[in-house]
Amino acid sequence: MKVLITGIDGYSGWPLGLHLLSRGHEVFGIDNFVTRRRVNEVGSWSAVPLPSFPNRRKAVRELLGKELGFYRGDLCNYDFVHTVLDREKPDAVVHLAEQRSAPYSMIDVHHAVTTQVENLTGTLHLLYAIRDTCPKAHLVKMGTMGEYGTPNTDIPEGFFETEFNGRRDRLPFPRQAGSWYHWSKVFDSGDVMYASKIFGIAATDVMQGVIYGIRTPEMTDHRLLTRFDFDETWGTALNRFIAQAVLGLPITPYGKGEQRRGFIALEDSMQSLRLSVENPAAPGEYRVFNQLDAAYSVNELAETTARVAKEFGLSPVIEHPPDPRVEAEQHYYNPLHERLPALGYHRTRELEEVIREIFHDLLHFRRRLEARRHVVQPTVQWRSVDSRPAIQARHASIPAPLPAGAERPASEGPPA
Amino acid sequence: MKVLITGIDGYSGWPLGLHLLSRGHEVFGIDNFVTRRRVNEVGSWSAVPLPSFPNRRKAVRELLGKELGFYRGDLCNYDFVHTVLDREKPDAVVHLAEQRSAPYSMIDVHHAVTTQVENLTGTLHLLYAIRDTCPKAHLVKMGTMGEYGTPNTDIPEGFFETEFNGRRDRLPFPRQAGSWYHWSKVFDSGDVMYASKIFGIAATDVMQGVIYGIRTPEMTDHRLLTRFDFDETWGTALNRFIAQAVLGLPITPYGKGEQRRGFIALEDSMQSLRLSVENPAAPGEYRVFNQLDAAYSVNELAETTARVAKEFGLSPVIEHPPDPRVEAEQHYYNPLHERLPALGYHRTRELEEVIREIFHDLLHFRRRLEARRHVVQPTVQWRSVDSRPAIQARHASIPAPLPAGAERPASEGPPA
Repeated sequence: MKVLITGIDGYSGWPLGLHLLSRGHEVFGIDNFVTRRRVNEVGSWSAVPLPSFPNRRKAVRELLGKELGFYRGDLCNYDFVHTVLDREKPDAVVHLAEQRSAPYSMIDVHHAVTTQVENLTGTLHLLYAIRDTCPKAHLVKMGTMGEYGTPNTDIPEGFFETEFNGRRDRLPFPRQAGSWYHWSKVFDSGDVMYASKIFGIAATDVMQGVIYGIRTPEMTDHRLLTRFDFDETWGTALNRFIAQAVLGLPITPYGKGEQRRGFIALEDSMQSLRLSVENPAAPGEYRVFNQLDAAYSVNELAETTARVAKEFGLSPVIEHPPDPRVEAEQHYYNPLHERLPALGYHRTRELEEVIREIFHDLLHFRRRLEARRHVVQPTVQWRSVDSRPAIQARHASIPAPLPAGAERPASEGPPA
Repeated sequence: MKVLITGIDGYSGWPLGLHLLSRGHEVFGIDNFVTRRRVNEVGSWSAVPLPSFPNRRKAVRELLGKELGFYRGDLCNYDFVHTVLDREKPDAVVHLAEQRSAPYSMIDVHHAVTTQVENLTGTLHLLYAIRDTCPKAHLVKMGTMGEYGTPNTDIPEGFFETEFNGRRDRLPFPRQAGSWYHWSKVFDSGDVMYASKIFGIAATDVMQGVIYGIRTPEMTDHRLLTRFDFDETWGTALNRFIAQAVLGLPITPYGKGEQRRGFIALEDSMQSLRLSVENPAAPGEYRVFNQLDAAYSVNELAETTARVAKEFGLSPVIEHPPDPRVEAEQHYYNPLHERLPALGYHRTRELEEVIREIFHDLLHFRRRLEARRHVVQPTVQWRSVDSRPAIQARHASIPAPLPAGAERPASEGPPA
């Protein structure tokens, strides 16, 4: 199949490109490289040094013997989106090109607006361009389990049969997101569901659990690695915990640490997305997949991280700072996830072994973490304080350019 | 109380200003006059000739002896919003300043994006500006009954107790909107609910039924009349039916005509909004009011219009063109509305008498309708055709400037 991946330069876009190419699909991507710039905006960088995108494509050509198509551009430019889709007419569009950080969306009013406006606009543009240029294309849209929040019931896959005042209906399951970013994904879900209804677009809306992991089997060379964020804005809690352990900082689950979320390994997320692509929704069908394997509490992540850290000679302590987010610190959590297994999905990776793999790589790139150790601890406050001044102040503390050797030259190759 | 009305120049913003002033409140407004321009964009105008805004304020001063504060500006400009709220520090903000037309949002991709982006941005800007300048202000946000769609159950006021897989929770009632515009209101509801939670803002989210009516008791002079739209983009179905009858055109309920919606008279909508303002939500409370009196089918509106038309010597026929929208033409519909009556709300106007009042005024302004008769019949298609070319073609058919006398001079006064 011919697959367009929007956000091909991103954490999951890049390994998905590699995975689909290795499975024999024709793949082309779109990116505007805004995540590279925005990670820089908050004073951080990827723990894994990233080749330029032309060098990434070159590596794919040389190492995999495949051609990766690419258009640089912004989904908020409708002419660009229409032109690319009209020219390429993909069979599937995997839409990953959104502002993906909850803390980034909470920095101040402008980051809130940017997040919701960009994500909505890109998705609407894709929906109309599909309608007008490749109406049979299957849209696989990256959403998040965070759309549902933490209701006191099980969480179905998108829809549920319910009763109210003696009458029954099948309705979208209520959404209760926990950041402006998560709400932007709720809004996208509404628009995709509606476009499916009025335009007849085939759509899979992926309620993605938190992804953990740094490598997939296709990353056979350091030139093929994906980005890995460890700062408070762009890194997940698990990524930060491992970075904290590597840097000799306390591991800091927020509040009581009993917040539970759904998780899936990077490699298994790629498997899931491939299964969605290879088993498309029907025309006019809007289906929702909860894409996760297991739920873990923040404390479980912290404790597993601390345990694995000891294998590497590290001895982190766990501290519990006040939760800067507004969320239930103890709650029921049981999302259902049966639709992907019905397509043949099976879990291949376990949390602890993946954490071990991340430690291995991050210790290799330790000097890059040390050069940005000031961005690991939390600054962004959910409630009533704009975080922009704190972030700007932090920039003043960014050290001088890295000493020679902190970034290993490409010729050294990846960690063993 | 000191009340800010955003969208003070609009169909409901203007009579709300008059109503709150007459009840002794201090009122100031914001508007960017975009609705005047956008009605012109689709080739139409208000059936009731509108004074310029300076003349409106002058009329308020001269006829009511009141001062109406005003700031011209755009809610999408955060500096403007912050400056106005910081200077005025209102007790209540009634937020009506949104793109309010479903057909307008369905014209093409750009109208879809504009609608969702403007509405979301304005609301987010207000939420942050309230947080930062007047955190105790009560936000009354205009939503729509259309957020709920037409589920096969009763429709509660925002939230419902429900059961899933043996566990119960109180959850937001699922939203299933029927246009990009209606989805924009769903998104606003999400953001307002969330801001109430994280910023502690007191908020009333009004699920407004379709408003019918042309006058309120405060409109004691023609200079105080509000706008009245009758074209397919900006006029409601009822407005168009009455305009069709006045123009000798067939009355055109779409499809089977059994689509049911909730309705409320303009005067009673103003009563409801005043009650919300005078009985504010508590800090951090997010409450939802279904603001309607009764549900009518499109056929009931058409038949009542045809019956009343006969009193004025008109004899319209009713035709059923195919529905250009994507909606159920026959469905269950029973929205609950108990919270406003609990605050003392009581219905004062009946549909048929209000239709009679509208006929009276539209016959008076008949020549303005005749000069724009080409905009009454439907052009905008919900499904797969951009409507912009059809609207542009229609512009070519707009007749030359009105003959003298088509707009009655102000000195003639209002219709008796």
